[in-house]
Amino acid sequence: MRTRAAVALQAGKPLEIMEVNLDGPKAGEVLVEIKATGICHTDEFTLSGADPEGAFPAILGHEGAGVVVEVGPGVKSLKPGDHVIPLYTPECRECPSCLSRKTNLCTSIRDTQGKGLMPDGTSRFSMLDGTPILHYMGCSTFSNHTVLPEIALAKIREDAPFDKVCYIGCGVTTGIGAVINTAKVEIGAKAVVFGLGGIGLNVIQGLRLAGADMIIGVDLNPAKKAMAERFGMTHFVNPSEIEGDIVAHIVNMTKTPFDKIGGADYSFDCTGNVKVMRAALECTHRGWGQSIIIGVAPAGAVIETRPFQLVTGRVWKGTAFGGARGRTDVPRIVDWYMDGKIEIDPMITHTLKLEDINKGFDLMHAGESIRSVVIY
Amino acid sequence: MRTRAAVALQAGKPLEIMEVNLDGPKAGEVLVEIKATGICHTDEFTLSGADPEGAFPAILGHEGAGVVVEVGPGVKSLKPGDHVIPLYTPECRECPSCLSRKTNLCTSIRDTQGKGLMPDGTSRFSMLDGTPILHYMGCSTFSNHTVLPEIALAKIREDAPFDKVCYIGCGVTTGIGAVINTAKVEIGAKAVVFGLGGIGLNVIQGLRLAGADMIIGVDLNPAKKAMAERFGMTHFVNPSEIEGDIVAHIVNMTKTPFDKIGGADYSFDCTGNVKVMRAALECTHRGWGQSIIIGVAPAGAVIETRPFQLVTGRVWKGTAFGGARGRTDVPRIVDWYMDGKIEIDPMITHTLKLEDINKGFDLMHAGESIRSVVIY
Repeated sequence: MRTRAAVALQAGKPLEIMEVNLDGPKAGEVLVEIKATGICHTDEFTLSGADPEGAFPAILGHEGAGVVVEVGPGVKSLKPGDHVIPLYTPECRECPSCLSRKTNLCTSIRDTQGKGLMPDGTSRFSMLDGTPILHYMGCSTFSNHTVLPEIALAKIREDAPFDKVCYIGCGVTTGIGAVINTAKVEIGAKAVVFGLGGIGLNVIQGLRLAGADMIIGVDLNPAKKAMAERFGMTHFVNPSEIEGDIVAHIVNMTKTPFDKIGGADYSFDCTGNVKVMRAALECTHRGWGQSIIIGVAPAGAVIETRPFQLVTGRVWKGTAFGGARGRTDVPRIVDWYMDGKIEIDPMITHTLKLEDINKGFDLMHAGESIRSVVIY
Repeated sequence: MRTRAAVALQAGKPLEIMEVNLDGPKAGEVLVEIKATGICHTDEFTLSGADPEGAFPAILGHEGAGVVVEVGPGVKSLKPGDHVIPLYTPECRECPSCLSRKTNLCTSIRDTQGKGLMPDGTSRFSMLDGTPILHYMGCSTFSNHTVLPEIALAKIREDAPFDKVCYIGCGVTTGIGAVINTAKVEIGAKAVVFGLGGIGLNVIQGLRLAGADMIIGVDLNPAKKAMAERFGMTHFVNPSEIEGDIVAHIVNMTKTPFDKIGGADYSFDCTGNVKVMRAALECTHRGWGQSIIIGVAPAGAVIETRPFQLVTGRVWKGTAFGGARGRTDVPRIVDWYMDGKIEIDPMITHTLKLEDINKGFDLMHAGESIRSVVIY
């Protein structure tokens, strides 16, 4: 079949809207009509050329929602008409990682996915002249139709709006999951969130959901304060407006008459800046503080600290896709949205048509959007 | 009263055996006759002058066992005749740390202990000319008699031999506790131990106790192999005898036909070398590997890694006193020794009289001892 897609022909150039060929689903694969897709910083990271693993031409996009059109041989858990969210972290439930019960990082199709290919080592997309086009993160939601492995699709309820729940395919799950799956924040905790972009806001609403007492947001941009408060931030810190360093400032804020040591129980880096990652670790509480890295650092960057920080009880962790097992957890997060336990609507600041997708990248660069969503 | 002690008069000089004055226990304090004490690398670290917080003159030693002689006003949990192990990490059971249920790092007397003083801000030790002598790590077990806070003494069974269980006051608990309290290693795990000195051997027997399947020991000295095997090591790696780097080597060793990714479930650094600490983290399994720092790094040294290591599921932790709450856990570890669940005797390679304590440091420098114990 033919479908319409925004194609990344080369690094650093705008996407081009065009008709492309799409082969039907092979064994274990599913053809999905994408109804809406978010534009994420990771798409921008690859499109810019900064991603050392980026390859072109490719159809980017990994934060979508849509409807199953056709299933290939052997597909058992999905049928045409099912509503789905594509998963860049699949959940096969039979690889060593899925069976470990310790990680969400399914490895069954990692090698081919990393190369922009389906599990059989080929692509379903091609130019009208026959030139193959690579898949991206196993999803390619910047195409109106796409093919994914069955294990990379979460089946969701049919009354959920595509243009909102597509955001659960990446940002919402990453932020909320970091709190509930990776950090396992408990009621009454004190937490700090560095960076109040889309991921930071979702960490904040995850902390509210988890019952945290003190939710400190840190950002250099004072314009971020109002939205973060709307999602549950209780204290705002602008590092450019305090005296002394941010670590001592956070430690002081979290002291009490009983606990004169101070420090956050949990901290989350949503900046990708390795210096911020160190501060995030060091502002946590001696004895038990946990710091979770969510942001993606530039290629080659390293984090550092004195080992004494760990020997005195702090724990340094990271999270990918919020530690969520997609087929199991994503439908649950969709329910939370539909039940009003979490909010998404205020974060979808812009909706666009596919023809205007490059405007979504412009809005991101200008810092004007939290999330732009393309509606097909 | 007067007692006999090995006094550290200044950094870099041998200890001097002398009579010293010891004031009796004040409120909440206990006078203990030390029967035996181990000589630990931490004593050597301070005596050498490398410890930035070292202060002199002081009575070092923190790995002892003895008998209560006298209790000060208000002491309820101990009486003369009780057998005890001094705790450099006390357990007050009422500070924010003890009540957190998340850490063993009791902070109730941390400030004064760090200064070499009793909780009231004074020392019980002095020279015969009246010059005050500092306490050390709240213990000062290189004195035949010493005074400690009640909260810094673990009461143990009376049939346990002092010259063996003194080692539970530091090395044994640190190594075994890192496995069972900090890492919480489960049956069937694959683990790597970097550095096969006294702490490494105790980590190894902790892993055996926890039911680990694969216990890989790493050391540059092939002479360490036999003793480590005696304590449960299943595989030995000498980094100087392999091709390529140690991380890839460990990852390959831990692959299976089912799990082609490989990596240790847990790793432990017992070297204090920050480069080894990085390798220890990076050789753990993607998705869930945990690396525990036990070794003490030189002042100012930093650990580093790419954040990607954490984002893909590895966890970096440290441990102090093996995460053990001393008054609660140390008596239990003494029981394990008496019941034959753990071994100590083969690790006590030398016993000395107090007059010969400097020989113990010489044996340590020469790498000839695992643990030297002074018997009073």
